[in-house]
Amino acid sequence: MFLETAEILENGKSLSVRWNNGQSARFHAMWLRDNALDPQTRAEGNAQRLITILDIPAETTLSSATVNGIGDLVLSFFPENKEVVFPSNWLREHNYDIPHNENKGWVGDHIKTWDNALNNSIPTIGYAQAQKKNHEFGSWLGAVESHGFAVMTGLPVTSGTLIDVAELFGYVRETNYGKFFEVRSEINPVNLAYTGLGLQAHTDNPYRDPVPTLQLLACLENSADGGDSIVVDGFKAAEILREESPESFDLLSGYPVRFEYAGTDGVRLRSKRPTIELGPDGEMLSIRFNNRSSAPFTDIPFADVDRFYSAYRKYAEIIERPEMKVSFMMQPGDLFIVDNTRVMHARKGFSGAGTRWLQGCYADKDGLLSTLSSIRSRAEKSQEAAQ
Amino acid sequence: MFLETAEILENGKSLSVRWNNGQSARFHAMWLRDNALDPQTRAEGNAQRLITILDIPAETTLSSATVNGIGDLVLSFFPENKEVVFPSNWLREHNYDIPHNENKGWVGDHIKTWDNALNNSIPTIGYAQAQKKNHEFGSWLGAVESHGFAVMTGLPVTSGTLIDVAELFGYVRETNYGKFFEVRSEINPVNLAYTGLGLQAHTDNPYRDPVPTLQLLACLENSADGGDSIVVDGFKAAEILREESPESFDLLSGYPVRFEYAGTDGVRLRSKRPTIELGPDGEMLSIRFNNRSSAPFTDIPFADVDRFYSAYRKYAEIIERPEMKVSFMMQPGDLFIVDNTRVMHARKGFSGAGTRWLQGCYADKDGLLSTLSSIRSRAEKSQEAAQ
Repeated sequence: MFLETAEILENGKSLSVRWNNGQSARFHAMWLRDNALDPQTRAEGNAQRLITILDIPAETTLSSATVNGIGDLVLSFFPENKEVVFPSNWLREHNYDIPHNENKGWVGDHIKTWDNALNNSIPTIGYAQAQKKNHEFGSWLGAVESHGFAVMTGLPVTSGTLIDVAELFGYVRETNYGKFFEVRSEINPVNLAYTGLGLQAHTDNPYRDPVPTLQLLACLENSADGGDSIVVDGFKAAEILREESPESFDLLSGYPVRFEYAGTDGVRLRSKRPTIELGPDGEMLSIRFNNRSSAPFTDIPFADVDRFYSAYRKYAEIIERPEMKVSFMMQPGDLFIVDNTRVMHARKGFSGAGTRWLQGCYADKDGLLSTLSSIRSRAEKSQEAAQ
Repeated sequence: MFLETAEILENGKSLSVRWNNGQSARFHAMWLRDNALDPQTRAEGNAQRLITILDIPAETTLSSATVNGIGDLVLSFFPENKEVVFPSNWLREHNYDIPHNENKGWVGDHIKTWDNALNNSIPTIGYAQAQKKNHEFGSWLGAVESHGFAVMTGLPVTSGTLIDVAELFGYVRETNYGKFFEVRSEINPVNLAYTGLGLQAHTDNPYRDPVPTLQLLACLENSADGGDSIVVDGFKAAEILREESPESFDLLSGYPVRFEYAGTDGVRLRSKRPTIELGPDGEMLSIRFNNRSSAPFTDIPFADVDRFYSAYRKYAEIIERPEMKVSFMMQPGDLFIVDNTRVMHARKGFSGAGTRWLQGCYADKDGLLSTLSSIRSRAEKSQEAAQ
């Protein structure tokens, strides 16, 4: 792909270019100057910008714009009298003269929402394979990005191995619960009521800000009957809510709720964030849903509280629909990871004699997505080299 | 304070109460049922909610509401036929029938925005004092909450001590830069240009999502001339922007920008968040501002890009005003902490022979605010005991 034409518009405040496939796009002089790729503007090693917006004259315009022999864009900026070249492909990749999604709660192409059809194709990898950190591990990390959920099998059944898993792609987020924490339930038929608790699908630690963006749960022992693990895609549930009741979606994304956790040993965590968090451009960013740590909602105007509760109930009902639930049984040596800003997890009740022992830890998506990006880029490079 | 009257409204869908100071407030039946304080609804130990919204009948209303002998509210819910008591003070503390701030970019009472007048009263504590974790340390943590900035002096001048400081109140956020990282500059007059770089006030790691919410910087050596540290309150700068140009404030809070960092060793971090992040209720939540890692803005509609750049420039100009800058010289054994979601830091150029050696690390606000809350609550209890 190369550029065929470049035409200055608005007395140099912007320009229009056309590629050889007929596609065209406009760019602003200020945007182009700010993103100039020359070594005085961007460091050659790490591509960090060396100038600030205040180093660019406010009256910057384009004094000339031409296409060179290989179809790249050559610009001159006034008043700096600075010449800069933009590769045609770079311009295509950064074209912003496009329709922007204005649908409240849209998700990017890298996100695939799901329901229980995923039961037949749960993204799974063996620990030994993961440790190779190759293409298969990249696909598994890719599933965490796209689906917010994946399973790992074949872990050594020893305490703390989940930390080694987190360190394959990133860094553990230590909290007051430690680097990792125990989820240990001894069956006690005297207290059957207890087994009925904590079943509702939820995201973890919504009372923490920033919330841990990844959770890992590893199974060390599971000799109880039942106790299936369940995951639900909170984004999918939000999409259904928006379809069935746009007003409910607007209420849950339009008002913050509060979460609170007061532990022993003086821990007191509080947060105030919406159930469905949107970016300023309407992109769906995260879900927080947890009955146990919900604090009284005090930020919703009186006139909207009844409608808000109806919306909250509708969302809870959608989450509970059987077709939303992917369920699986954890065996010793199994681990699952969820995007804790999106995918809720739950546990069916269990009974009979036996023990259920899991360990959990938190980590963050920045490290995982960086490792994923790095594996992908390595794969692209070796593909290019093979061609 | 006690209740004098309770009156059922809307056929039991809500009620109105009046305290003995004449203040009155309405509450919804559904809200009251959801927040019931009885041991079947809230666990007695940790106050976690034991029921979900789906356990509450959708048609819930109040069948009776009376004030008991000590001025608390006694309610019966239909159809559960459940009786619950609400202490009058609990109701006052959770009253939501109040005017809600609708000013875009409002900040809570716990936040104090500042300019360079703070130069005369920089919140400071000695390390030895901080280690006692008593009232003075609570005040220092309180300054981080309210001002987003505080200084600690008297640290041992040994590598890694800043980790011990972070562990006084919370947990280090490890990243690809390690548990902590070196900020070491050898003076090299051959490359004077370099000393002019990295000066603009910025928040750290905006390309990371979640962004580290706290940054600590400790000084181990500073024999260079100049190199003052500078901090600027990004919330204050945003308030000034809103006052001087509401349109600019709306643009910077209304569109996301992108940040990117591609390091050596395959690190590739990307984020998409607004410069000024607001909650759905307009509360100012965080600032991200960093020229070096800003990626091309591709999410702003073409028609708004020039206005967006003007707004971005205005914000940068405000940040650079001398009256915004609190400046101080770091000596070996000094450390400062900033709320990295709000306070920007910068460095003046330095020159002459000498070395400047800092170490930095990241941590998160959840741990700090929990420790603060715990110290405050201990103080309240001992005050009560003394009375």
